[in-house]
Amino acid sequence: MHALMAARSVAVVGASERSDAPSGFVIRNLLTCGFAGRLLPIHPTAKTIYGYKAAPRLNDLDAQPDAVVVAIPAAGAVGIIAEAVALGIQAAVVLGSGFGESDAVGMARQQALATAAAGMALCGPNCLGLYNLQTGLAMFSSRLAPDMPRGTVAIISHSGASAIALANTGRFGLSHIVSAGNAVATDVADYINYFALTGDVRVIALVLEKMSDPDAFARAMQAAQAAGIVVVALRVGRSARGAAATAAHTGALAGSNEAFGAFFRRCGVIEVNDLDSIVEHCVLASSRQPRPRGPHLAAVGVSGGGLAHLADLAEAAGVSLATLSEITKLGLAALLPGYVKPNMPLDLTGIVFGEPQRYRTVLDLLAADPDVGQIVVVQDAPPGLDADGAAEYAGIAEAVADYGHSATVPVALLSLLGSGPHPLVAAPLIVDGVPMLHGGLPGMAALANRLLPPAFVATAPRVIAAPQTDWVARLSGGPALAEREAKDFLRAHGIAVTRDMIAGNADDAVRIACEIGFPVVMKIESPDILHKTEASGVRLNLGTEAAVREAFADIMAAAKLYSPTARIAGVVVQDMIFGGVEALVGLSVHPPFGLAMTAGPGGVLVELLGGHALDLLPIDSQVANRLIDASRLGKLLGGFRGAPPGDRASLANLLMELGQIAASYGAWIAALDLNPVAVLPQGVYVLDALLIRTCDVRWDEDATQNHH
Amino acid sequence: MHALMAARSVAVVGASERSDAPSGFVIRNLLTCGFAGRLLPIHPTAKTIYGYKAAPRLNDLDAQPDAVVVAIPAAGAVGIIAEAVALGIQAAVVLGSGFGESDAVGMARQQALATAAAGMALCGPNCLGLYNLQTGLAMFSSRLAPDMPRGTVAIISHSGASAIALANTGRFGLSHIVSAGNAVATDVADYINYFALTGDVRVIALVLEKMSDPDAFARAMQAAQAAGIVVVALRVGRSARGAAATAAHTGALAGSNEAFGAFFRRCGVIEVNDLDSIVEHCVLASSRQPRPRGPHLAAVGVSGGGLAHLADLAEAAGVSLATLSEITKLGLAALLPGYVKPNMPLDLTGIVFGEPQRYRTVLDLLAADPDVGQIVVVQDAPPGLDADGAAEYAGIAEAVADYGHSATVPVALLSLLGSGPHPLVAAPLIVDGVPMLHGGLPGMAALANRLLPPAFVATAPRVIAAPQTDWVARLSGGPALAEREAKDFLRAHGIAVTRDMIAGNADDAVRIACEIGFPVVMKIESPDILHKTEASGVRLNLGTEAAVREAFADIMAAAKLYSPTARIAGVVVQDMIFGGVEALVGLSVHPPFGLAMTAGPGGVLVELLGGHALDLLPIDSQVANRLIDASRLGKLLGGFRGAPPGDRASLANLLMELGQIAASYGAWIAALDLNPVAVLPQGVYVLDALLIRTCDVRWDEDATQNHH
Repeated sequence: MHALMAARSVAVVGASERSDAPSGFVIRNLLTCGFAGRLLPIHPTAKTIYGYKAAPRLNDLDAQPDAVVVAIPAAGAVGIIAEAVALGIQAAVVLGSGFGESDAVGMARQQALATAAAGMALCGPNCLGLYNLQTGLAMFSSRLAPDMPRGTVAIISHSGASAIALANTGRFGLSHIVSAGNAVATDVADYINYFALTGDVRVIALVLEKMSDPDAFARAMQAAQAAGIVVVALRVGRSARGAAATAAHTGALAGSNEAFGAFFRRCGVIEVNDLDSIVEHCVLASSRQPRPRGPHLAAVGVSGGGLAHLADLAEAAGVSLATLSEITKLGLAALLPGYVKPNMPLDLTGIVFGEPQRYRTVLDLLAADPDVGQIVVVQDAPPGLDADGAAEYAGIAEAVADYGHSATVPVALLSLLGSGPHPLVAAPLIVDGVPMLHGGLPGMAALANRLLPPAFVATAPRVIAAPQTDWVARLSGGPALAEREAKDFLRAHGIAVTRDMIAGNADDAVRIACEIGFPVVMKIESPDILHKTEASGVRLNLGTEAAVREAFADIMAAAKLYSPTARIAGVVVQDMIFGGVEALVGLSVHPPFGLAMTAGPGGVLVELLGGHALDLLPIDSQVANRLIDASRLGKLLGGFRGAPPGDRASLANLLMELGQIAASYGAWIAALDLNPVAVLPQGVYVLDALLIRTCDVRWDEDATQNHH
Repeated sequence: MHALMAARSVAVVGASERSDAPSGFVIRNLLTCGFAGRLLPIHPTAKTIYGYKAAPRLNDLDAQPDAVVVAIPAAGAVGIIAEAVALGIQAAVVLGSGFGESDAVGMARQQALATAAAGMALCGPNCLGLYNLQTGLAMFSSRLAPDMPRGTVAIISHSGASAIALANTGRFGLSHIVSAGNAVATDVADYINYFALTGDVRVIALVLEKMSDPDAFARAMQAAQAAGIVVVALRVGRSARGAAATAAHTGALAGSNEAFGAFFRRCGVIEVNDLDSIVEHCVLASSRQPRPRGPHLAAVGVSGGGLAHLADLAEAAGVSLATLSEITKLGLAALLPGYVKPNMPLDLTGIVFGEPQRYRTVLDLLAADPDVGQIVVVQDAPPGLDADGAAEYAGIAEAVADYGHSATVPVALLSLLGSGPHPLVAAPLIVDGVPMLHGGLPGMAALANRLLPPAFVATAPRVIAAPQTDWVARLSGGPALAEREAKDFLRAHGIAVTRDMIAGNADDAVRIACEIGFPVVMKIESPDILHKTEASGVRLNLGTEAAVREAFADIMAAAKLYSPTARIAGVVVQDMIFGGVEALVGLSVHPPFGLAMTAGPGGVLVELLGGHALDLLPIDSQVANRLIDASRLGKLLGGFRGAPPGDRASLANLLMELGQIAASYGAWIAALDLNPVAVLPQGVYVLDALLIRTCDVRWDEDATQNHH
C-alpha cells in the first residue's frame, strides 16, 4: 500500500501529450501538484513526453518504479499488469473502463486482472486514480486545481464524479483523494487501514457502491477507531440482493438496508443519506477546535425563530441542549437587558449587533458552564447580501472568531441555509479556525455525531462448533424440511421446542395426545401448506379424546378445501403451551453479510404490525439484548397491561444459541424462522419453526429485494 | 390590506436620522428601494427628516397617509394606533418589541393594541415590517440591498431573522417580504389571501411560529390554490400544547405535530423541515420552465454514482423515474457508444464532456418520450473548482441551457451538493431560465412536490346537529362519566354499543345476565379504575349462572387488591361480542384545531403497537376512509391471515357519526375513546368507551406534550 499511496517514482503506460488523454491528465497533474519523485513515461515510439525521456516498455526502464499508471484501453491492461508484477512492481493504477461494469467480456477481463495483480496494491480499474496531497502524487486522470486546500480529510469513493464533487467543495482541507473504481484488488478496507496506520488523516469520507469484504472492512474500521479517525459514509445505489428467503416469513421484514445499517453501527461508521451531510461532518470533524467537553449543546444566536428551529432540529437528531447553571444565568442576567431571557437556546436579540463585545462575554459565560459540551452559534448572513448588508454581521463574526481562537469548549457556527454565511462574515472565522456548518439538517447531524460519537462495537470472540454430520447431510439435499424436522434440528442443538408427533389418523392422534398429556395442539402437516393458520389447519387447547378426534377430521377437511392438491403428511399433535409472550426469532441471508438475525413480536400479527429489529452475527449477550430492546419485544416482555413478564434472559439465551447455529450451519441455511416462540414467565418454548435450506432457494436476480 | 401592502403615502412616527434608529432604516429603505409615493415623517420638534418636511403629529399632516409606520417604543404605540384609527388611516406597521413576547405588561399592551387597531390592517408588533418589491414600499426596519432580485416569491415569516435569511439567498426573485411579528391583527392568512387576489405571486414561503386562526388560514389556502400559488411552510418551535387529554388512552398516540401535518395536508400546504427545502421549492416553483407534463422524472448525468444516489433519493421521496419507450432507447443507442446503456437514470459517462451537442440531442430524445414529465440533469461542478476546472463543465451547462431556453418538457439542474454549481457553470443556465437545485435532499423534495403537487382537500359541508340539552348539562359538570354513561351518550346518538347493566351483587349479576342472554362479559365499574384490564377487572365469555357468580366475587376481590381505596360502583354485565377486528377510535383536543380524530388497531395492543392515524374535523367519507387506510386498520379489516374481513363501511360510518358528535359537543368534550370497537363481518359494536369532559381537565402548562 505504501508503494501505491506514497510512490516516489511513477511509470505511465500509454503516456501521451494529447490534452484529452487520461495519461495527459495524470502527467500534467504530477507536474503541477508538486510531485517531487520520478516520472517515467512509457510510449512505444516517442522519445520524450512533456520533456521527460520515454521508454518503449516497462522493462526498458533503467530503474524499477514504485507504481505504474496504466492509461491504455482495457484490452491491453491485463498484459501490462502481468508485466509489472513480473518486474516486481508493487503498485498500480488502472484507469480505463471496459471491465466488470460493462459486459461479460469485461467481467472476464476483470477476473484476469485480479488474478494478474495478485499481491499488488492496485487502484481501479474504471477509476480516476488517486491523489496524495501531502506528496503531490497525483496519479489522477481528471483535472486537479493546483491550490486545493490541504488538510486531514481523505476521500475514498467508488464513484469518480462523487470524489471530484467532494474534493472541490472548498470547505475542508484534504490529505488524499482516492477514486477506487471497480476496486478489484485494493478496496475501501485497504485504504482505510492504510490511513489508520499512517496517522495524518483525521476524517475519512466514503462514497460506497459495494461492500466486497465486510470482515476486512470491520477490521479496518477497528484500526481507524483506534487511531481516532472519524469515518462518514454514503452508500449509493441501495439496491442490494435482498434476503434470499422471500419464501420465509422473516424475508419480508428486514432487507439489506437494515443489514448495512446494523453493520455500519457495529463498525462505528457514521452513515448518512446525502453528500451534504458528508461535507458537514468533514468540516466539523477536521476542525481545529477541541473535542466537545460533554454531550450537551449550548445554542446561541440573535433570532428567536432560528433558535426555535435549531431546538427542533436538535431534538430530531437526538441532541440534548445544555441546562444552564444558576451562576451562568445570573451572569447572563447581569450582562444583558431584562427582556433577554437566560434560556437555552439563548436568544440575544438584536442587542448584540451594536455591542459585539457582549457576544464575546456571553460565549465565555457559556464556556464556563459545566453542562456545556459544545457551543453552536446560530447565525445566517446569506451570500445574497451586498457588502454593506454583510458588514452588519461583522461584529458578531469577530466576537465568535475571537472566542474560537483559544476556545476550551469548542464552538461552531451554524448557518441554517445550505449556502453558508457571506464571505465577509466567514473570513474572520476561517482565520481563527471556527468551523462553519451549512444547512440545518446536515449541520445538526454533524454536531450530533460530534457530541455522541459512534464507536466500534466489539463482540465476544466467535467459538464456532463443528456442525453435526447427519444434519449437514439432511441440510444439503433431499426434500424440504417439514416443521417437525425443523424442530428436531433445533432440539438436537439444545433448544427447547414443543414435543410433537405426527398422526396419520384419528386413533393415532388420540394415542399421541394421551402420551404427551392433555391439553394438546393439533396442526396440519404438509410440505405444500406453509401458512397453517390461513388454511384453518390449527386447533388449540384440545382437552379430551373426543375433541382430538373431531379436530383431526376438521383439519383434514379444511386442508383439502384450502388446497385440494396439497400432499398431506398427517396432523401433528403437540403439547399446549399456555400464555407467554409470542415472539418471532429468525435468520435470513443478507448479502454480503451472510445470515442476519431478526427478532420481534411473533404470532399472527407479524407481518401486520412489524416492529422487528435486525442485527448481524455474531450474537453475544449485548447484541441479543439490543435486539430485544430495539424491537417491540422489550416492552412486551416487561409485562404489558397486567400480563406476567416474559423471561428475558432465556430469550436472550435463545438468540445466542441460534447465533451459534447460524455460525455452524451458515452455508446450508437460507432462512430459519422460529415463530411463535412462547416466552413464558420462566423459560422459552419454540412452538413452530420453518427452515429453508440454501439448496431450496433459486438465487435469481428477480428475488432482489430492497426494504428502506 | 391594499392600504398596507401597496400604500402610496407613508407616515413614519418616531422618524429619526439616527443611523441605528428603526425609523432611520425605514426611511432610508423607502428612499433607496424606489418608493415613488409620499414620505411623511412625524417628529415632535424637527422641521425636516432626511430633507422631508416633518409634522409634529399625525393629525397635523395635510393629507391622510395610506399607512403609518410606528417606530417608537412599545409604551406609546397603542396611543398612536388609536389616533391613526380616529383619523381614518387604514393600515399600520408597528415595529417595536415589548408586547406579547415579553411579559404580562407587554401582553396587556398587545391586547390594547389589538383592540385599538380593530378594522385596520396592521403588521406587527415586534416585527421588521414589510417590503413590496413591486412598488418599492419598503416599510422595513432592517437593511435592504437596493438590487435585490425581483420576481414572484413572497416571504411571510413570524420571525424577522428568518425573513432576512430567506430574502437574501440570491436564489430566486422576490415580490414581497413580510415580517409579521406577533401578528396581533393581521396574520399569515390575511397576507396569503391578499396575494391570492392580486395575482403577481407564484410562490409563498412561510416561516410559522403560530397558527392563530386555522379556519381563516384554510380559506386563504383555498384561494391561493385557486390562484395557482404554491405555498411551502416551515413550522418552527414545534412545542405545541399537546392533546389535553393525557389521561385518555388516545392522548399519548397522536400529538400536535400530527395535527399540524393533517391540517397542512388538507390545505395543500407543502410542509418542510428546514430552510433549505423552502429555498429549493421557491427556486423550482418560481422558475420560467413549463409545469411538468406528467408525474415521472427522467434523470440524466455523467456520474453513475451520482445517478444511483439520485435514484435512492427519488425512491425515498416517492418519485417514480420514467420508463423510456423503445423508440427513445433506439434513439439513444444510435446516438451513443455501445457501453452507454439506455437505462433510467441515464448515465452518459464522460463521453459528453468532449461532445456537448450529444447532450443536447439526448435532452430532445428524453423530451420526446411520452412518459417523461420532467427532466433533471444531475451535475455537480462545485464552487471550489478553479476557473479552468469549472470551464470543463461549460459545454454541458450550455447544452442544458440551450434545451431549457425553449423546453416543452421542463428541465432542472440538480447539484447534489448544497453549495450548488460553480458560478461559471451557473451563468448560462441563469440566462436561459433553467432552475438550479442545490442539495440532494431538499432538491428532490422540491421536484417531488412539483411532479405531484399537493391540493386543497375540500370536505363535505358541515351540518352540525344541535346538542341534546340533557347531555349538555351532564357534560358541563358533576362527577366524571363512568364507562356505562359514556356508552349511554353514544347510544343516545345512534351508535351501536353493547347492552350493559350494573350489578351490585352476585344475584343482580345473574339476573342481568339472564336478561341480556349468555354468554356475557363482566367488568369492574369504578371512577378510580380507568384501566380495567390492569386491575384484573374484566372476565370474558361467562356462559353459566355459576360462572357469573364466581366472576363477580373474583372481580371485586381483585379490585380491592389493585386499589384498596377505589370507590366501587359495582360490576357491569354486558353482552359478549365474539370475534371481529378490534379497533380504537378516539377524539382528543389538538389546539388550535379543536377535536381531532384518531383511528387504529384497538384492544390491549394499542399503546404497544401504535400504527394509528390522525385527522381533523370534519370527517366525511373520504377522510374516514383515509384514516382507515393510513392506519394499520385497513390491512386488518381486509381479512388478515384467514380471519373474516371486517365491515369497513360500517366503521367508516362510525367515524363520520363520531365526527358529527364532535361537531355538536366540541366545547364540552376533551377526549372520547372508543376502545375496543369490534368491527364484525357485518356491523360494528363499541365495547368500551371513555369520555373526558373539558371541565375534567386542568389546562396547565405542564400538560403540554409534543409528539414528533
